[in-house]
Amino acid sequence: MQPWEFIIVSDRDIRSAIHDRFCQANQSAASAYSGERQRLYSSLKLEAILDSAVNVCVTCNPTVTRGHGLGRQTMPETVMYSAVCAIQNCWLAARAEGVGVGWVSILNPDELREILNIPSNIVPVGYLCLGYVSRFDDEPELETKGWERRVPLADALHFDRYGATDSARAAALLRDRE
Amino acid sequence: MQPWEFIIVSDRDIRSAIHDRFCQANQSAASAYSGERQRLYSSLKLEAILDSAVNVCVTCNPTVTRGHGLGRQTMPETVMYSAVCAIQNCWLAARAEGVGVGWVSILNPDELREILNIPSNIVPVGYLCLGYVSRFDDEPELETKGWERRVPLADALHFDRYGATDSARAAALLRDRE
Repeated sequence: MQPWEFIIVSDRDIRSAIHDRFCQANQSAASAYSGERQRLYSSLKLEAILDSAVNVCVTCNPTVTRGHGLGRQTMPETVMYSAVCAIQNCWLAARAEGVGVGWVSILNPDELREILNIPSNIVPVGYLCLGYVSRFDDEPELETKGWERRVPLADALHFDRYGATDSARAAALLRDRE
Repeated sequence: MQPWEFIIVSDRDIRSAIHDRFCQANQSAASAYSGERQRLYSSLKLEAILDSAVNVCVTCNPTVTRGHGLGRQTMPETVMYSAVCAIQNCWLAARAEGVGVGWVSILNPDELREILNIPSNIVPVGYLCLGYVSRFDDEPELETKGWERRVPLADALHFDRYGATDSARAAALLRDRE
């Protein structure tokens, strides 16, 4: 259905306006934490709106007729999922070429709409910062800095029914994969 | 935040039950078309629930507290997007190993919930059929069979503001990429 479009944002004034809105949203987000976690939050690299080579806002048109509604009768939300898959493809393709991508979700969609002239029927799905980076970390920054630990894949596997976990079977399955 | 979980569905009875629900949903979907388009619809390969090696239902827990809410204050929908990115990663990883993946969205989420014992607070995001295939097509079946034509990427690019398209600039940008 190709419901996605890409706004390539290079203009400094527009990026500055979006960066301002990020700072407001981020201050509000930071205030939800306290103590050590708030200090940790403030240390995280959460955007590169002005520092990156280019920004890209990926949008979705949920009322797109292209595709003739195929596969959308029982799960209309797949139109949004299509745009998310496009973002993930973009992310991986960029990474394969040595380009870093950051997905900034600490932005108010309505403010993005206003600054980027996005009509009310079009949904801003993701706001990306793309550019060459000084290095790629071996593990996610959120792990390195102690914000959160990764859940092992085996713990996320269920067999035939939700709730039917089986750590031995999951471990065996993942061992086979290696 | 890792809101995703994977239900690995191997059981034949469960798969048969899901296949039955697919057939009902698909009949209803087909009835929305008429004439030549309905005939074309009926010729499409839309599922491999019983034919594939394994099915995987990917779910999302939108109320997961893991990740401490990072990046979710202004765009809480990112929790669903995280599960979709996991599906796309799974899809590409499988394809890189010669495994075919089909995403079946012609299923009623509540029926999936019932058959797979998925609690009401957990969202079934995607239902996948995975397995080795006889071949990979060079272009999507929907194009080959004439269901829909692909929109060129250049037509989906906007510059700095939504609606600011520029076909010459888009063409130049995409040419540089090659």
